[in-house]
Amino acid sequence: MRELFHDELDSVFVDLAAICSQVEAAVAGATEALLSGDAELAERVISGDAAIDQAREDVEEKAFSLLSLQAPVAGDLRVVVAALRMVTELERMGDLSVHVAKIARLRVPNIAVPEEIRPTLSRMAAVAEDMVGRVKAIIADRDVSAAIELGRDDEEMDQLRRRSFAELLSDDWTQGVEAAVDVALLGRYYERIADHAVSVAHRVVFVVTGEKPVPAVRA
Amino acid sequence: MRELFHDELDSVFVDLAAICSQVEAAVAGATEALLSGDAELAERVISGDAAIDQAREDVEEKAFSLLSLQAPVAGDLRVVVAALRMVTELERMGDLSVHVAKIARLRVPNIAVPEEIRPTLSRMAAVAEDMVGRVKAIIADRDVSAAIELGRDDEEMDQLRRRSFAELLSDDWTQGVEAAVDVALLGRYYERIADHAVSVAHRVVFVVTGEKPVPAVRA
Repeated sequence: MRELFHDELDSVFVDLAAICSQVEAAVAGATEALLSGDAELAERVISGDAAIDQAREDVEEKAFSLLSLQAPVAGDLRVVVAALRMVTELERMGDLSVHVAKIARLRVPNIAVPEEIRPTLSRMAAVAEDMVGRVKAIIADRDVSAAIELGRDDEEMDQLRRRSFAELLSDDWTQGVEAAVDVALLGRYYERIADHAVSVAHRVVFVVTGEKPVPAVRA
Repeated sequence: MRELFHDELDSVFVDLAAICSQVEAAVAGATEALLSGDAELAERVISGDAAIDQAREDVEEKAFSLLSLQAPVAGDLRVVVAALRMVTELERMGDLSVHVAKIARLRVPNIAVPEEIRPTLSRMAAVAEDMVGRVKAIIADRDVSAAIELGRDDEEMDQLRRRSFAELLSDDWTQGVEAAVDVALLGRYYERIADHAVSVAHRVVFVVTGEKPVPAVRA
């Protein structure tokens, strides 16, 4: 019974890593659509989100069946609930990629991100995408030290967000209100993707060690 | 055993309604701080969030103990997991109130919301607060029809968000980039509070009827 439980739990984590891979592609696609003004790619990210939603439902059903049939207790129970939370967060990261893609689509044939803030914004996007890619490996390998490291690297995202505000609000900003609002919201979306990545990584720490490294998602 | 299970489950829902009440106060306080520039009140909302976090942890522990000791299956199991998700969303609504309070604090002694967009923004805040208050009653009374109605009323929030963008991006906007960025982010926070309120209400429908009314949180 216990062996079966752990086999099925392993299969849930394989699914979670696969969803993380889908999310990574969504973040990458949304960013490319944003920075190049590619409406077709933006559409693909937006319509592709349904597949992530479906994958989440499948994992949820698997987790519920594990809980119902095996009635795990103590640590095992908490691991299954952690998996349920991880899949919710991964799906949310997909939603946030859709938000990015929608801003891209809204501004076509223009590009939502003006040249002068492109370095900061594209770095935020790269950090977010990199974090999602690392989370995928962290889930697949149950890599606790990489998970803890990810939490530390989130600091760069905070710095980039502050820098983007400084750029938007400086006297040198010549791009007007619309671009500023777009960039502020885009920054928020990438920041939230990073927050969720850290939170998922921390849940992996919990799954492996039984201990929470730090509070989950930052406010 | 089963009676004990349902008594303990009832007590979880009493706790959830109490947390919803704390969230309602946080939304109201953050909005008042925002619209009046009251730094002290903003601080109280920010520091008060720790109590919501603690209440969430207490509910989670209670739910885990229910799952461990009673090993519910099928519908009962899903109800406990739904309660775990509801408390996560309620806590998140508290975090979003903190974000509003932080923008209020950042602009003191000024007021972040310019007069010209105050009607729209304060209506968004009122809709969000009202929705949180109704969710509290929906949880306490397991009121399915009120829960379904709440989902419909969320449409007003969408309209207000669109109106706020139209106002920010019109030629009449004279308040510059900083105020526009603040208002765009504030609009996002209130919209997310409303999204979570709808999602929590829908989980109540699921808890009572065993069926999901519609997809949970909107992207």
